Amino acid sequence: MKIALMMENSQAAKNATVLEQLNTVVKPLEYAVFNVGMSDENDHHLTYIHLGIMASILVNSKAVDFIVTGCGTGQGAMMSLNIHPGVVCGYCLDPSDAFLFNQINNGNALALAFAKGFGWGAELNVRYIFEKAFTTGERGMGYPLERAEPQQRNAGILNQVKAAVIKDDYLEALQAIDRDLVKTAVSGERFQQCFFEHCQVPEIESYIRSILD
Amino acid sequence: MKIALMMENSQAAKNATVLEQLNTVVKPLEYAVFNVGMSDENDHHLTYIHLGIMASILVNSKAVDFIVTGCGTGQGAMMSLNIHPGVVCGYCLDPSDAFLFNQINNGNALALAFAKGFGWGAELNVRYIFEKAFTTGERGMGYPLERAEPQQRNAGILNQVKAAVIKDDYLEALQAIDRDLVKTAVSGERFQQCFFEHCQVPEIESYIRSILD
Amino acid sequence: MKIALMMENSQAAKNATVLEQLNTVVKPLEYAVFNVGMSDENDHHLTYIHLGIMASILVNSKAVDFIVTGCGTGQGAMMSLNIHPGVVCGYCLDPSDAFLFNQINNGNALALAFAKGFGWGAELNVRYIFEKAFTTGERGMGYPLERAEPQQRNAGILNQVKAAVIKDDYLEALQAIDRDLVKTAVSGERFQQCFFEHCQVPEIESYIRSILD
Amino acid sequence: MKIALMMENSQAAKNATVLEQLNTVVKPLEYAVFNVGMSDENDHHLTYIHLGIMASILVNSKAVDFIVTGCGTGQGAMMSLNIHPGVVCGYCLDPSDAFLFNQINNGNALALAFAKGFGWGAELNVRYIFEKAFTTGERGMGYPLERAEPQQRNAGILNQVKAAVIKDDYLEALQAIDRDLVKTAVSGERFQQCFFEHCQVPEIESYIRSILD
Repeated sequence: MKIALMMENSQAAKNATVLEQLNTVVKPLEYAVFNVGMSDENDHHLTYIHLGIMASILVNSKAVDFIVTGCGTGQGAMMSLNIHPGVVCGYCLDPSDAFLFNQINNGNALALAFAKGFGWGAELNVRYIFEKAFTTGERGMGYPLERAEPQQRNAGILNQVKAAVIKDDYLEALQAIDRDLVKTAVSGERFQQCFFEHCQVPEIESYIRSILD
Repeated sequence: MKIALMMENSQAAKNATVLEQLNTVVKPLEYAVFNVGMSDENDHHLTYIHLGIMASILVNSKAVDFIVTGCGTGQGAMMSLNIHPGVVCGYCLDPSDAFLFNQINNGNALALAFAKGFGWGAELNVRYIFEKAFTTGERGMGYPLERAEPQQRNAGILNQVKAAVIKDDYLEALQAIDRDLVKTAVSGERFQQCFFEHCQVPEIESYIRSILD
Repeated sequence: MKIALMMENSQAAKNATVLEQLNTVVKPLEYAVFNVGMSDENDHHLTYIHLGIMASILVNSKAVDFIVTGCGTGQGAMMSLNIHPGVVCGYCLDPSDAFLFNQINNGNALALAFAKGFGWGAELNVRYIFEKAFTTGERGMGYPLERAEPQQRNAGILNQVKAAVIKDDYLEALQAIDRDLVKTAVSGERFQQCFFEHCQVPEIESYIRSILD
Repeated sequence: MKIALMMENSQAAKNATVLEQLNTVVKPLEYAVFNVGMSDENDHHLTYIHLGIMASILVNSKAVDFIVTGCGTGQGAMMSLNIHPGVVCGYCLDPSDAFLFNQINNGNALALAFAKGFGWGAELNVRYIFEKAFTTGERGMGYPLERAEPQQRNAGILNQVKAAVIKDDYLEALQAIDRDLVKTAVSGERFQQCFFEHCQVPEIESYIRSILD
């Protein structure tokens, strides 16, 4: 499993802490972690808007399997990611949120609050969230198990409705976004390493390269 | 201000409790409350998918100004509403979530968890959330106030990115959604009362009437 | 109503913020607020142990009616206050905790967590807690109302059991505590102003004066 | 390690759920679990007052090492246990509460809220709390580690202050409590099994036997 962590400017100073917890939890599983957002407050400047675009590109190009993100309250990141086709982003404040979102909604992204409620000892809660997000076995099994069928069905319909509302062609949707926003979103060195190495959709890669030229 | 409350099948039994709290808080302000989802477990059956479609129609037709919704964890409702153009839905577990979402993100919908964490005395928390969502004055002023400018700018860009990704024409996006889903979403008597009385966009009304024929 | 706010060394830097919220909420009610703990990190050094002793003296001398306190997690302050006769201290993380504790347990102190979970925007949660602690009318009425009788009875029995376990004479109990701890607890200027001006039990005042000599 | 779970009348119906989670977590460690409170709503009737007395007897007789308890909000149980000598009871709503309380305060009891906030899926949170309470290694090590010294010192002073305030002799304190309350507290069959089999203080056993005669 390939996991991207992406953080924006307001909480960039906490990136090292969050990354450490994520690595601690998923390294024993040999999951790859890509720290593709801001690594500190002086890094390439990103807002939660860029996080959504970055998630869109990484997910739709199959460069990564899962996104961990957030912002001050987590609401901006959550809404920004959920704009995009194929990105299904939950909002997660405690460990059971992570488990339930995986089992019931079976999405591919979690937005955390890295400022609100993020006080002393918050690194523990972050670690426990990652434990329940990444080390509890197969996802999408429903919770409780006997509710799996309607839960899986609704998760599928959610994707269909989103696909209906969004432009039919992914590249068309991506190209409709302000070019400067996309350029900023893809300009980070660590983002590019992750994306260019793992992108599985050549047309998306071509478009991103054209923007960077 | 016109507020729609919409709840789905899994938590329909709690509709009376939530509605009572909402009325208690906003009636002194003379806000109108429309209870357009399920009112009990035997009511017209709705899932969180339908809630998103209902919110889309009510917001885009300017029939209501704000949506209060939720489901078991609130995640399904939150993601379902955020699919749709013009719907900006936060996730809200405590009173300060409501206040901060209004000031920072200035959306038009809140998704609550009506099962997870909803234990004894939860009606108090719901009431306090509504107090901070609806009785704290002007929205979108930023928090803290000196951060208003970037917060307002990002909220605006969020809407632009969503508009870019979604089909250009609202009716086209609505019509692309499975007709049976839309029909179920708009078949409730209380929904229709609210919508047909307050819809301000004739083309949306025409499409909904065509589906109901 | 006379309310004492008391904070210890680890969170002393937040005293101004908490005090401001408390004043904002209770000043319209003309409640008196006494800021008797540390006002900043350079103030007279207190631990949660001292907070308990201070609360004991203020409550048992009837100098104040209610204590607002806390520490990093709030657990130390909560346990420290609850050691002492006549001090009934709840633990409070959200506004409904405050309301329910008042109605069900009808205590005279609340311990908050001023570090754990105390992130960005936490001043809002603190204010909302104070609103529900101090502006919701008569205390001890039970919640829900029809449960008042057993709730009031148990609150009374709690006090009886505590009185049975503790030394029979308050002064004897107070005098049994390490004299240096008590001396540090009562050495703050603002504590002394509050205590000596409002103490209604001469024997307690005499003992405190003897310690300070 | 011997752990007693004790629940009172208002949440007795949840005993099986909580017990199952506790067993699931601690059985691999070969910890013994004693379910000494109410097992369902028809069981021998206990209030949070009795829980405190039961905890006092079990802890002071060294019959068990740790108590898991709670009530509707958890506040009554928390305060009731903290009355008694030797019982150091934290309040615990999430997994990191459990870990931090163990490391910082190093108590021997945790009170949970079994009604407030205890909604759908709450069994997950209970399990995660038990994981962090019982499977994270040595307690009392401080958090962060470099704060161990003052944290351990304060935990020790807390016990000294409590010992000073409470009657000098444990049996005297126990005997001062209303005899009917104690009798009800010790009348449950599962309580007696646990106590009589593991009590290591003959004088306490004698007193309890005298009450039961």
